[in-house]
Amino acid sequence: MPLKNYRWFIEYFSAEEGHLHGIRQVLFSKETPFQSIDILDLGSYGKALVLDGRIQSSSRDEFIYHEMLVHPAMLAHPEPRRVFIVGGGEGATLREVLRHRSVQRALMVDIDEEVVARCRELLPEWHQGAFEDPRTELRYLDARKYLEETSETFDVVIIDISEPIEEGPAYLLFTREFYEIVRERLSPAGVISLQAGTVSLNDLECYAAIQKTLEDVFPMVAPCWASIPSFALPWGFSVASKQQDPRHLTPDDVDKLVADRIAGDLRYYDGITHQLTFLLPKHIRMRLLSQTRIIEDNHPLFTWS
Amino acid sequence: MPLKNYRWFIEYFSAEEGHLHGIRQVLFSKETPFQSIDILDLGSYGKALVLDGRIQSSSRDEFIYHEMLVHPAMLAHPEPRRVFIVGGGEGATLREVLRHRSVQRALMVDIDEEVVARCRELLPEWHQGAFEDPRTELRYLDARKYLEETSETFDVVIIDISEPIEEGPAYLLFTREFYEIVRERLSPAGVISLQAGTVSLNDLECYAAIQKTLEDVFPMVAPCWASIPSFALPWGFSVASKQQDPRHLTPDDVDKLVADRIAGDLRYYDGITHQLTFLLPKHIRMRLLSQTRIIEDNHPLFTWS
Amino acid sequence: MPLKNYRWFIEYFSAEEGHLHGIRQVLFSKETPFQSIDILDLGSYGKALVLDGRIQSSSRDEFIYHEMLVHPAMLAHPEPRRVFIVGGGEGATLREVLRHRSVQRALMVDIDEEVVARCRELLPEWHQGAFEDPRTELRYLDARKYLEETSETFDVVIIDISEPIEEGPAYLLFTREFYEIVRERLSPAGVISLQAGTVSLNDLECYAAIQKTLEDVFPMVAPCWASIPSFALPWGFSVASKQQDPRHLTPDDVDKLVADRIAGDLRYYDGITHQLTFLLPKHIRMRLLSQTRIIEDNHPLFTWS
Amino acid sequence: MPLKNYRWFIEYFSAEEGHLHGIRQVLFSKETPFQSIDILDLGSYGKALVLDGRIQSSSRDEFIYHEMLVHPAMLAHPEPRRVFIVGGGEGATLREVLRHRSVQRALMVDIDEEVVARCRELLPEWHQGAFEDPRTELRYLDARKYLEETSETFDVVIIDISEPIEEGPAYLLFTREFYEIVRERLSPAGVISLQAGTVSLNDLECYAAIQKTLEDVFPMVAPCWASIPSFALPWGFSVASKQQDPRHLTPDDVDKLVADRIAGDLRYYDGITHQLTFLLPKHIRMRLLSQTRIIEDNHPLFTWS
Repeated sequence: MPLKNYRWFIEYFSAEEGHLHGIRQVLFSKETPFQSIDILDLGSYGKALVLDGRIQSSSRDEFIYHEMLVHPAMLAHPEPRRVFIVGGGEGATLREVLRHRSVQRALMVDIDEEVVARCRELLPEWHQGAFEDPRTELRYLDARKYLEETSETFDVVIIDISEPIEEGPAYLLFTREFYEIVRERLSPAGVISLQAGTVSLNDLECYAAIQKTLEDVFPMVAPCWASIPSFALPWGFSVASKQQDPRHLTPDDVDKLVADRIAGDLRYYDGITHQLTFLLPKHIRMRLLSQTRIIEDNHPLFTWS
Repeated sequence: MPLKNYRWFIEYFSAEEGHLHGIRQVLFSKETPFQSIDILDLGSYGKALVLDGRIQSSSRDEFIYHEMLVHPAMLAHPEPRRVFIVGGGEGATLREVLRHRSVQRALMVDIDEEVVARCRELLPEWHQGAFEDPRTELRYLDARKYLEETSETFDVVIIDISEPIEEGPAYLLFTREFYEIVRERLSPAGVISLQAGTVSLNDLECYAAIQKTLEDVFPMVAPCWASIPSFALPWGFSVASKQQDPRHLTPDDVDKLVADRIAGDLRYYDGITHQLTFLLPKHIRMRLLSQTRIIEDNHPLFTWS
Repeated sequence: MPLKNYRWFIEYFSAEEGHLHGIRQVLFSKETPFQSIDILDLGSYGKALVLDGRIQSSSRDEFIYHEMLVHPAMLAHPEPRRVFIVGGGEGATLREVLRHRSVQRALMVDIDEEVVARCRELLPEWHQGAFEDPRTELRYLDARKYLEETSETFDVVIIDISEPIEEGPAYLLFTREFYEIVRERLSPAGVISLQAGTVSLNDLECYAAIQKTLEDVFPMVAPCWASIPSFALPWGFSVASKQQDPRHLTPDDVDKLVADRIAGDLRYYDGITHQLTFLLPKHIRMRLLSQTRIIEDNHPLFTWS
Repeated sequence: MPLKNYRWFIEYFSAEEGHLHGIRQVLFSKETPFQSIDILDLGSYGKALVLDGRIQSSSRDEFIYHEMLVHPAMLAHPEPRRVFIVGGGEGATLREVLRHRSVQRALMVDIDEEVVARCRELLPEWHQGAFEDPRTELRYLDARKYLEETSETFDVVIIDISEPIEEGPAYLLFTREFYEIVRERLSPAGVISLQAGTVSLNDLECYAAIQKTLEDVFPMVAPCWASIPSFALPWGFSVASKQQDPRHLTPDDVDKLVADRIAGDLRYYDGITHQLTFLLPKHIRMRLLSQTRIIEDNHPLFTWS
């Protein structure tokens, strides 16, 4: 009975468009110093983490988002041992990273301890014990500051943060200066992976600017994408590096690497998915080609701006 | 000012999920004997044709839908001259068909004259004069009955109809019996193309059943898909034939065929898009493999059932 | 089935509050030079006239609004013969006025001919032939300008217009200067009646300012109110005059006057309703007492301002 | 900025009508064995207690609801000492009862301890310490069962419960049998007061049936009403007794009683408000006159049924 859904969550894409969800239960809701957090049970997607009104992932299709964010980058590296995760509060990026048998250390830095604590408590299907893995180290800090100050290097850096909104915690993690800091901390064969906003034709500016900014910092940038139903709009990602290019892997290469290096079964990612994810429709490729603006600390980019 | 949007259109995907649009203007709204028609000016997608509460296409991204529905099938045929369009009220499928220089006759059969008349009047950017092309023939009839009674054959049959809902006009155009009728009317190298509902992981039954049903009738079935932002959920299509397989075309083949055979520029479709469109993510491929049910006249399939 | 309601009308009371209605049918929708007009079939209230996103009246409960706007003022006058209606596009204010046997002339001036034409065509239950009554005269003009230029006087002036919004046609019909023009055109026993916006405790400024402005112009001002479900919020009205005070009528007086002077049966208004309508809850009375601001041409009042 | 309101509460009045509120904060949300509880911070009404999707009261206008529910009944009794409250989780009915200097004992019985505990914690402006008053006794029981088993009598019984919905805790507190139990527990001059659902013309059946049922049990039944903006629809109440009739009090009587018997200032209720509250519009009076059905344990009434 739809009348049961007297609480609704609308993820707005503009003042005139949104994705509407009946809320079956509010599991947690709080304003922290960094953002507003909601953990909701949504009718069509099960549990979902919502930060500042944006779905981060849902129990039904988080496997698409997290496999996509982690595996193309991890497999592009010959043997990733040390991995740095920026954000990733649900623990599911960590979970996917730890499935790689080569990983010896996974350092996850999230600015908001409350997010991590609540996901740990309320979203066990996401993290599946990853927080307790002996290879895991968790810190609640400004990841940018941490990377600036450390002298450690990493094989893979995965940036799993919410979109750059004006008062949100993330916008200084989408700039040329930040990507330069990451580059300094990558080992020679190191790879960076990140989610990069929608690739819907109504709002390609953010995605195109992130790609252009990455190209300013890294010699290899491989834009990629996925359709994640709970996000409604098609979603963009990017893999960048000093040398490794995941697009050189054939479907068979990927299937073999998955079998050799990853524990357990994947649901979204395999050789064919790998191939499709780096193929962008023509209108998106054209848009990327025409991009000139890059994002800098003193010229940041905001969605909704 | 968002308060201006006092009228909202919600395309429901379930009783608990929908795509929400501010309506800037209602251009036309009427119940016909076949369906309810709305032509709306939506905030984020411009004008849109809505039948029985489902977006058929929007001015902002109809090019994705129509290029996707038409060109893979047309290029799979060595020289399509006679094309049959089932539905396609906006006239944009017709427009894309007529761009193929080989086409000599395009017969479009839509059951609802009111839809065609209003699209012709209010959506000129869609049809761009296609209804006036001398190669066009328009009829307002039950397309299934027409195909059963004619002895004409066609090189390409494009099925551009709304989803099978219980009281809607379309559900008998999604059955084994209907596809058998189409097969009878296809020339030996003939190809059929159709939209086949969402491929969102929440509702793959419809798509999988259509593929399975096509496989029962045609030796070659090539499932494909696209992300069309105004549809929100990822969308499935299919190309089937007695022999031609579009997947044998390389990106370069496609780019050459597009240049040779199609007038004007395409925005969505080219060699790379062709490649990606036939690559389905792993979880969708797995779902198709496990499908057993096929759709028949006396066991029809309804979305929302 | 609620999914049938894919079109919704929200009458916003603020950016955070609204009255939500499923739209069964859009009967008419157009932007005129003066305002946006929608005639909608709403689930719970039947047909409704909506101007600039605000419900003017609905078939289910328009009797409350129109009996309330017309009869207290008409009965306060000893024998109303000449009535002037400002606005009143639905024709239902005219209908109620013409039920008074004493009326010899009803002059209705609405600025927007399109509103009147569409109500005449689509809302016959509202006007019930009032536009064809030989006592009726209809003009499509700026009512304020007309009253300034005429030398005719009227026994009752009824102001049946939408709320003062910034770009709407009505805001100069809520000022001291306008009420002074009306006063000049009233016969010595003349009475003015008007709707005056919500009396919800969240937004009493508009109502209080209108009452204060009327008190600046008329020696007798009787604020009154009604609950009209399709308006959701409780609604304010006012009756003012140079001398007649409707509050001096007892319930029995009113019942006798209704029987003697009005043709047909009333559904909302009688002696007891008359009594209650002039009784305001304590918190509203307190708010009126503390009001100081009056509305003037160069200090107009806007709802939503 | 409305985009901030990504969470919305809709209080549905039917599948096609509702009152829409932006949620600024979710303060508490839980399913108890009895009902779903939400304590929300709503844009236009401040904090609100919502049970099973229905607003019980809001910080902005709870004074209307609670003064209306308590004072007409309390003043109808010559000297109320012992008061029984059924439900009333917010503690505001208790607060108003305790303002009466004559009260020596206020026994409040609510079935759901969780509601009371959360209101006590999160809604201090409502109860204002009433739970700590030495005259207060709180019990978490089935009130009907308690009244059946006790031999105590009360001067006033106030029924402050949510509407009778099919799976809710309240429907057996709206029947003839329950009112007979209450009558047995009333002192000779005893008075009962209750909220009785909407008096909107779309849904008068519930209100009319409650009045008719009360008339079957009590010699004096005085239906009354108020407009409470956060409820949107006009709301019905009733006062009944074996002998006392509040309608015999003049406005001056009421003002004097308020001054003599109630501590502190009232915001909604006084002599004039008392007068208006017992005056119902004509169409509601007509509907009450035509009512025949009464509510019994084995013929219960459900809203939404």
